[in-house]
Amino acid sequence: MTNNITIIKIGGNVLDEPAALAAFLAGFTALPGAKILVHGGGKIASGIGQRLGLTPQYVQGRRITDDATLDLVTMVYGGLINRQLTAQLQALGCNALGVTGADGNVLPALKRPAGEVDFGWVGDPSPERCGTELLGAWLQQGLTPVFAPLTHDGQGHLLNTNADTIASVLARALTGRYRVRLLFCFEKKGILENPDDDHSVMPVLNREQYRRLQAETAVSGGILPKLDNAFAAAAAGVEMVVIGSAADLIANFAADSVCGTLIQV
Amino acid sequence: MTNNITIIKIGGNVLDEPAALAAFLAGFTALPGAKILVHGGGKIASGIGQRLGLTPQYVQGRRITDDATLDLVTMVYGGLINRQLTAQLQALGCNALGVTGADGNVLPALKRPAGEVDFGWVGDPSPERCGTELLGAWLQQGLTPVFAPLTHDGQGHLLNTNADTIASVLARALTGRYRVRLLFCFEKKGILENPDDDHSVMPVLNREQYRRLQAETAVSGGILPKLDNAFAAAAAGVEMVVIGSAADLIANFAADSVCGTLIQV
Repeated sequence: MTNNITIIKIGGNVLDEPAALAAFLAGFTALPGAKILVHGGGKIASGIGQRLGLTPQYVQGRRITDDATLDLVTMVYGGLINRQLTAQLQALGCNALGVTGADGNVLPALKRPAGEVDFGWVGDPSPERCGTELLGAWLQQGLTPVFAPLTHDGQGHLLNTNADTIASVLARALTGRYRVRLLFCFEKKGILENPDDDHSVMPVLNREQYRRLQAETAVSGGILPKLDNAFAAAAAGVEMVVIGSAADLIANFAADSVCGTLIQV
Repeated sequence: MTNNITIIKIGGNVLDEPAALAAFLAGFTALPGAKILVHGGGKIASGIGQRLGLTPQYVQGRRITDDATLDLVTMVYGGLINRQLTAQLQALGCNALGVTGADGNVLPALKRPAGEVDFGWVGDPSPERCGTELLGAWLQQGLTPVFAPLTHDGQGHLLNTNADTIASVLARALTGRYRVRLLFCFEKKGILENPDDDHSVMPVLNREQYRRLQAETAVSGGILPKLDNAFAAAAAGVEMVVIGSAADLIANFAADSVCGTLIQV
């Protein structure tokens, strides 16, 4: 209960820039204590998908994971990105272990039932089913799990899973065992009061403010599921949930101060 | 020292046939005791490489791993095949952990020095540098490591590595700690005395017989590195080294009898 763990989620804006990635990985490695890295896919998957002649499939404007897309993300997220990150962290002295939710069954998920939209091979994991015992054992062994955004259905299929959701579910599952600090890295320095003003970072965002920003459409699009995942983690007792830029979060976190936007319930 | 471990290497002839693979994985899961699976790549990597517009690079008839090929095998071996095998084994109740040599630094390697041929991103691992402590801890946790044919150089690069070599190196590294049984699965029922007669399987092959078969060109090509890896393991004290077909090896191994060709030093 007294052990700290830091869970950091990075996305395309870090993964797509070699210099930013190298700086991030060095900072991540230097963070003391147990830690977990969760990564998304960035533009890399789309680029390779194009070269393979795959056309992204959309139903009612929502992207779906058909068989070919599942193979693509398994190759790119579970292979190229995850394996390279692991090798790069090892070179820095961070004892990384690159996993999907299928490894050691640490993150099983339910295939999302087809409703108005059939999302295909998409999985929704839950904190209750997370293999916290094994995760805890790996952390005790000094390993740093690096999660690709993939889970599995326990019936032999991998499932495409939102990386923010994986980070949030891991944080919720480990709360109680650890004092969990969850950092979501994205392209801004935090949640902006005014989306046109990069200097309007809100130091704190609570649910009421979140509702207000939504009503004012100051937040919309891809940031909404990220914020929902952040609030779900904060509501579940995760000690600290912050959204901001990778460079700021790592630099300030090492100095034990907070940067970016702190999520409060 | 009294614990048994079974290390099985499978290649394209199993991976490329869904029915053969399903039967193999069920048999593998049913094997009692600690076990490790090592897989190659089969035709899958070549097919995806073609779709990506990659042309295999050869120098003096030897295939080399350039940057694009390393990315390809990282995606296909480390991602598609390894992650799918892990999910399929989980569905059967085998607690698989899909790894490359970079994970937990269990199998570091030296990038092969450029001699007459520069093989590119190719790595040669050694039993001495294998992370047997961590491997042993994983096995104690009930995990079944599934190795993709990739190692790393400790400087941030993955390295393409022969799957037979990985199986042999793991077997040699774990000998002493475990009674190791090493099975190489390939497309024949064993080493053939007469390459044109599938019924001429040799029950035992020793070094002298191996030299004779080479002189008679009864063995040649891809089987030579496999046999060299097999003899290296037997010479290092690996208790049992067998080469044969996946179906026969699994069936007979479960019945505690030997099928295929037993390698003797």
